[in-house]
Amino acid sequence: MPELRKDPITGRWVIIATERGKRPNDFLRESVVARDAKNCPFCAGNEAKTPPEILVYGRNGGGPNTPVGAHEVVIESPNHAATLATLPERAVEDVLWGYRDRMLDLKNDKRFRYILIFKNHGEAAGATVDHPHSQLIALPIVPRRVREEVDNCWHYYDEKERCIFCDIVRQERDTGERVIGENEHFITIAPYASRFPFEMWLLPKVHGSSYENNQSSIYASLARMLKDTLMRLDEVLDRPAFNFMIHTSPIGEEINDHYHWHIEIIPKLTKVAGFEWGTGFYINPTPPEESARFLREARIPTTAEKK
Amino acid sequence: MPELRKDPITGRWVIIATERGKRPNDFLRESVVARDAKNCPFCAGNEAKTPPEILVYGRNGGGPNTPVGAHEVVIESPNHAATLATLPERAVEDVLWGYRDRMLDLKNDKRFRYILIFKNHGEAAGATVDHPHSQLIALPIVPRRVREEVDNCWHYYDEKERCIFCDIVRQERDTGERVIGENEHFITIAPYASRFPFEMWLLPKVHGSSYENNQSSIYASLARMLKDTLMRLDEVLDRPAFNFMIHTSPIGEEINDHYHWHIEIIPKLTKVAGFEWGTGFYINPTPPEESARFLREARIPTTAEKK
Repeated sequence: MPELRKDPITGRWVIIATERGKRPNDFLRESVVARDAKNCPFCAGNEAKTPPEILVYGRNGGGPNTPVGAHEVVIESPNHAATLATLPERAVEDVLWGYRDRMLDLKNDKRFRYILIFKNHGEAAGATVDHPHSQLIALPIVPRRVREEVDNCWHYYDEKERCIFCDIVRQERDTGERVIGENEHFITIAPYASRFPFEMWLLPKVHGSSYENNQSSIYASLARMLKDTLMRLDEVLDRPAFNFMIHTSPIGEEINDHYHWHIEIIPKLTKVAGFEWGTGFYINPTPPEESARFLREARIPTTAEKK
Repeated sequence: MPELRKDPITGRWVIIATERGKRPNDFLRESVVARDAKNCPFCAGNEAKTPPEILVYGRNGGGPNTPVGAHEVVIESPNHAATLATLPERAVEDVLWGYRDRMLDLKNDKRFRYILIFKNHGEAAGATVDHPHSQLIALPIVPRRVREEVDNCWHYYDEKERCIFCDIVRQERDTGERVIGENEHFITIAPYASRFPFEMWLLPKVHGSSYENNQSSIYASLARMLKDTLMRLDEVLDRPAFNFMIHTSPIGEEINDHYHWHIEIIPKLTKVAGFEWGTGFYINPTPPEESARFLREARIPTTAEKK
């Protein structure tokens, strides 16, 4: 019998196939591989094809231009074929610092109420350019989906005096069956009510309410965890298309005890169809316990091997 | 400047590109054409590949089997390559009666609280079988998305003593700029806050709260309108993949003054990506006024020509 699971944070229902869940090889493999770099607007030499730069790391001389917009593109590497899974940890960390620095700067503009950072990787996930990049959109309102998630966490905190995500981290570490990886500061899990096969959440183990307000050492640790997680994804599903979104507190309420920032990663393996549109329910053909096992057991180079 | 529009029924925000909206030819054309009928589980002669039939129209002798399940497939035609746009009106009407008859029968099972009828047409829209079919899922709960939509209509009615959809039909007929087609009983519009390019809503012009409780003549009129609408879609976008969902009142509250049943049609032209997942917002590159104009002006055979 399929299992109905309710996400404790959003109240969203998911139908999870339990008998003979879909395994990695059951999904159509469409590896994301960067195509021809010629004419790529994000490759070096083609700067004239894009609006002016806002922030640049690692280039000697020639500082960035400084207009501040509401939609920014973070080019993750000059290498057209690189990905966050293949870049050196230090380069991934630069991307994470770039997100933070742009958030802090944009927050000076009092019009903005929420800053969303996300990545569309591969055409199936909505990417229109192959060159590795992520996006930042600053919004003059708090999106309803964000407001609901934060408010639901507040209600939980109000009742139990604990952060719901802190409770989830504790429970998942106890049972271990949905844990994909863990390092000093972070843990990656397949959430209990996963909407999609191989959905992953990457959370700080100690409570933190906003992405941009962390000790410096956190970003290096996050870079290692994110790279490790994406390498596992590439290994198990043969470099699939995916989206990730940073979930963080709205502007003006960054420091709080009830909301716990994190990154949600959604591989693009299934299609959202009539049933999902009609009900808001999701049907997930792969139990998260099985997703987690495949990802946890993936053979990827260790940090030592990588160096 | 892009325009922010709020859907009056769901409160959902949509960002609509207004300058030089995307036209039909700007979208990648991936015509849906049925592939090889060999091994098709829905073709005649392959009945052993599917569970027993529940309801059959138009076959002499050999009545259907009668187990009642919670997930049913409506095979729309024995012709593997037919679609609701190409079938004769009478055959489309049979499909619509089939939906109604199955809903009425399933409502005898007191466990069910909502019956969703939907169609995934084409692989990009989530169809896994090419043979023309739609689906019916009976649920033991009212999905939250349905509950919210019905409740929001109730709040509007409570305040204004009018159905919000009746108001929309009146306003759209007045301005005409988002009207795609109209017949005796139905109107098809591009909704004001369309989430997707060429999204369409097909509504009864006179108030009706549930799909299954209508005068017999309504289904013939709906068949004409649905076929006409899908022919326009095929003509303008070269047979795109699409989803449609029937929105109707939950079981036990079928007859009311506040909710207005209708069909929502979503062509699959864009990809839901990180921004939508992160915010619940949609970005629509084609203003509905432009979608409506293309669809309204599409050259399709008239009823007379078709006969």
